[in-house]
Amino acid sequence: MSADGFVAGPNQSLDEPLGVGGEALHHWMFQSTEDVDRELAGSMLDGVGAFIMGRNMFGGGRGPWSGDWRGWWGDDPPYHCPVFVLTHHPREPVEMDGGTTFFFVTDGIEAALASAREAAGDDDVMIAGGASCVNQYLAAGVIDELVLHIAPVVLGDGARLFAGVGPDVTLEVLATSGSAAATHVTYRVGG
Amino acid sequence: MSADGFVAGPNQSLDEPLGVGGEALHHWMFQSTEDVDRELAGSMLDGVGAFIMGRNMFGGGRGPWSGDWRGWWGDDPPYHCPVFVLTHHPREPVEMDGGTTFFFVTDGIEAALASAREAAGDDDVMIAGGASCVNQYLAAGVIDELVLHIAPVVLGDGARLFAGVGPDVTLEVLATSGSAAATHVTYRVGG
Repeated sequence: MSADGFVAGPNQSLDEPLGVGGEALHHWMFQSTEDVDRELAGSMLDGVGAFIMGRNMFGGGRGPWSGDWRGWWGDDPPYHCPVFVLTHHPREPVEMDGGTTFFFVTDGIEAALASAREAAGDDDVMIAGGASCVNQYLAAGVIDELVLHIAPVVLGDGARLFAGVGPDVTLEVLATSGSAAATHVTYRVGG
Repeated sequence: MSADGFVAGPNQSLDEPLGVGGEALHHWMFQSTEDVDRELAGSMLDGVGAFIMGRNMFGGGRGPWSGDWRGWWGDDPPYHCPVFVLTHHPREPVEMDGGTTFFFVTDGIEAALASAREAAGDDDVMIAGGASCVNQYLAAGVIDELVLHIAPVVLGDGARLFAGVGPDVTLEVLATSGSAAATHVTYRVGG
């Protein structure tokens, strides 16, 4: 998240999937040499048995699926387990290298969560993003833990985390750490 | 600041100067028993020779001054030095106990900053708040250092820090610390 609350910049496009300036939000993950960042980046997907993400995060676009676009995560996405993609348009699952299969869910966030939980078994389900997806799950009160990585960046506009979530969500700080590249805060979520 | 970026809740009033839910933003300052919070709260005004704040932070209200309302900081405000209050309506200075005098500045943020710098001498000028005041100075590019205290609170609405500031502001993390009550981040500001 940027210091001003955005998890992607304005004008997201195929060329700039994170919007204008949005790449800078992830410098801590890919460019920082500080231990705190490297350890977090290396372990953040550990213990996750299934992911949920919005269509924008999978590969962008709108309307019915067409062509063979398999998203912008490359042939071997970093997930290595089932990924449930929220969409209004049905599509057959897409199996990638390395154990990642994208499943396309058209019957809402609760259905996606149920499928992800079943797929994950005893492992965790991670709501990966983007903002709209996370905000819907926050508003639904089904997120147990939220990890923010606040980058020293002001984007000015874009996709805002917590938009429409409202004041009923409660947060409890579980852990804080920081580097020059980001401030990391883990919250227990209630409400 | 709340986790969702507000420095005051919605519906600020004489009864709730920080808006609905806004008091919780300051628990780290007044209620936390953790060392990191107590040390920060105890030292945050050290070395400051003059303050600038918006009229809302001084005492609320709109339009020409009337009556003898001396703001909501009590007879002995915590500032103990000159405080320059941004307003559109002229008023004679108000001298309080303990060395605090409120001066009312009607010719804009640059004039207020010049007066505050002169009053502070070799000491620092602190832009105390609220959001609109800080945002104007951020947008003007005259803030050197920004200290955020991010409380584990979602307000949902209110006065938003960084609103209208735009992406030309750059931040560099100088220090990070945290407690159950707040995540503290000091930024050097550029741009």
